[in-house]
Amino acid sequence: MDRAVVEEVCSLKEARKKVLACVRAQSYEVIEISQACGLVIAEEIRAPKDIPPCEISLRDGYAVSAGDLSGGGSTKALRLTGAITTGDKTDISLTPGSAIKITTGAPLPGLADSVIPYEDVEVRGDLVFPMKPVIKGQYVLRPGSLATRETIVARRGDILVPTTIASIVDTGKAFLKVIKKPRVGILVTGDEVVEPDYHSEDMSVFCSNRYLLSALVKNYGGESIALGIAPDDEEILASILEMEHLCDCIVISGGTGKGEHDCVKNAWRRLGIEIIFDGVLMHPAKGTAFGYKDGVLFFSLPGNPLASGISFVQLVSVALLKISNKEFESPPELVATLAQSLPAGKDGTPRFFWGRAVFQESELTVWPLGLEKTDVLSQISKANCIINVEVGAKNLPQGSCVAVHPVCLSSNLGYLTLFGQ
Amino acid sequence: MDRAVVEEVCSLKEARKKVLACVRAQSYEVIEISQACGLVIAEEIRAPKDIPPCEISLRDGYAVSAGDLSGGGSTKALRLTGAITTGDKTDISLTPGSAIKITTGAPLPGLADSVIPYEDVEVRGDLVFPMKPVIKGQYVLRPGSLATRETIVARRGDILVPTTIASIVDTGKAFLKVIKKPRVGILVTGDEVVEPDYHSEDMSVFCSNRYLLSALVKNYGGESIALGIAPDDEEILASILEMEHLCDCIVISGGTGKGEHDCVKNAWRRLGIEIIFDGVLMHPAKGTAFGYKDGVLFFSLPGNPLASGISFVQLVSVALLKISNKEFESPPELVATLAQSLPAGKDGTPRFFWGRAVFQESELTVWPLGLEKTDVLSQISKANCIINVEVGAKNLPQGSCVAVHPVCLSSNLGYLTLFGQ
Repeated sequence: MDRAVVEEVCSLKEARKKVLACVRAQSYEVIEISQACGLVIAEEIRAPKDIPPCEISLRDGYAVSAGDLSGGGSTKALRLTGAITTGDKTDISLTPGSAIKITTGAPLPGLADSVIPYEDVEVRGDLVFPMKPVIKGQYVLRPGSLATRETIVARRGDILVPTTIASIVDTGKAFLKVIKKPRVGILVTGDEVVEPDYHSEDMSVFCSNRYLLSALVKNYGGESIALGIAPDDEEILASILEMEHLCDCIVISGGTGKGEHDCVKNAWRRLGIEIIFDGVLMHPAKGTAFGYKDGVLFFSLPGNPLASGISFVQLVSVALLKISNKEFESPPELVATLAQSLPAGKDGTPRFFWGRAVFQESELTVWPLGLEKTDVLSQISKANCIINVEVGAKNLPQGSCVAVHPVCLSSNLGYLTLFGQ
Repeated sequence: MDRAVVEEVCSLKEARKKVLACVRAQSYEVIEISQACGLVIAEEIRAPKDIPPCEISLRDGYAVSAGDLSGGGSTKALRLTGAITTGDKTDISLTPGSAIKITTGAPLPGLADSVIPYEDVEVRGDLVFPMKPVIKGQYVLRPGSLATRETIVARRGDILVPTTIASIVDTGKAFLKVIKKPRVGILVTGDEVVEPDYHSEDMSVFCSNRYLLSALVKNYGGESIALGIAPDDEEILASILEMEHLCDCIVISGGTGKGEHDCVKNAWRRLGIEIIFDGVLMHPAKGTAFGYKDGVLFFSLPGNPLASGISFVQLVSVALLKISNKEFESPPELVATLAQSLPAGKDGTPRFFWGRAVFQESELTVWPLGLEKTDVLSQISKANCIINVEVGAKNLPQGSCVAVHPVCLSSNLGYLTLFGQ
């Protein structure tokens, strides 16, 4: 290692700051609202008018004026003089002592202020007999009760959960400005690495890294673009990177050895990508490097999937979240109780472990995985989070509280693993 | 209401049992592994051979036999006799007192048992001088340490989180059997209901229900199919339902009034759909009904989006989860602390409120929304969960513990709302 490289090694906290400082504001796109779930809205939505614009019946029944019934008790009969069905456009009005048949969702006729549901009346011929006292305003949705004109229904930067979408549709809006998802190119390096189901010799290593990183991209709101597998050749690597101006971020795994084959940084230098840091004080993945050019973020992660996934969550994730206009100093975390002790690490270096976290009653419990270094694949296969052991922590006994970063959210049923599935 | 209908009203617990009893086993499909994130695997995955199949270098450096260095101390020189690069197929072997240059991921040469990283040696000409003591086996990945042949890497029924996918790729598998996502048809009824951005008269109501229910379908692992908007006409409704044999489940919102316009159940009767229950003891959405025919589940939900969303989460969600082979007696829930008191309800009826839940340190706090019945849209717009108030609960003061069902998971960044975004 030469001296320049040593100087560029930094703490995880510093590294995250440097990464966040390079993120520029993302542009927006206009999409159909049915595609908007979980995206970040880039405009403010106001009600264009009072919603509802007039009094609306909340039941199938009879529109009445409560005043007609207040004098003579609840048995007084009303004369049925018409009907209003939902969707009707009508100027019909009550006359004193009358009732008008009405359906749920229909506008109240003039002079009516209350609705009596079908089940609360008796009808004989054209006479309607209320069976219960009528409270003025009952079963009526008041004008503007859902929203008054100019009320803000959603704000710029809100995340579009199901009810946000429904409220926006209620204002009549079908298209929305949202922040574009960050596009993340994923490039795997290594002469020995092949795609799965390649009819390989025994020495082949499958590019599990690409699939792991791609799934993690989704977890932090990005869209992954497979840039394929590159040989350990800085010229070829540079030519691939040069073509990728369509990405907001390029993640390269492997090719980071300290020997002659450290071709990622050499390729970056060829392309004039500024190396912002080269090495982070963390375990594992201390070889993680970060470069920047023309608004594109470049991450060089270890070739070992277990380490590269941790590096991704600790550093790439906060960049992706900031591109989506959500700034976090560290990846979103929950507090969990250790189900098993964890060994002490070196002072001054935070350590990370894969884990499986499960909510039990109101408490999150986490099991560290793969500590034994045997049967690693079937252990790690169960991981739904990364356990974060703080700088300077000693041996952590069972029952200790630790921070965990869940990596099972955001696609289909992954979150159910937190519920013990 | 006639007597038959009254008899079919049941408790929420009974209703869920009846729904679950109608769910039949879902078929599987084969998909490319990059599309598998968050789905449920329908086959068992075993390692086809030891992984790795031989000893592999974990560093760029020099392959050596530790025994060559154990006698004469750590300064003994080794003669450089060759090089192995990752991906090479070579039968090269160490000779006593020699070292072979090696890259990360390359197979160890014969007779080598340890790797010395570049940074821990000095090289002069063809002599390699180790600078530190060498521990036998250092920086070497042992055969079968990731998985031994026939080890189970993933089990039938596992949810495919990012590391499950990576572990499966490590076995060389590119295609997977997964349980098909439930297909949920969503039909909105009402003569007055229109799509948003329709240039409507003032009386129009937009079909926010369709968008709300569609977003909720995603949250519980399903795929939604828009069946459009139907008028309040049982004949037309029946003709639409009859065509929908491609769905596992059909959800209809609206058209459930107790008056003459209760056309959903009439349409069901026309089609020979068995009405399993008609009415559930819960608030809101007590008009929820459920029918069954030929393996397809039919739900009739209220027309009011706030009520229909609650009904969906309480009843449809458990059906969708069971179709995905995940059986829950009630929707997945977390325990939260009430940030604001909730009013008492009627005994014997569980009550539900929309809420916004946020993790603060290790505790989940929830704010009930829309209690005031004013400005409802901008209130409900923020909801990321449903608050479940148990049967018989009295007034719940601020600080009480309640169960909440999150409805913000599983698509893009929705889950960040639980982190205060």
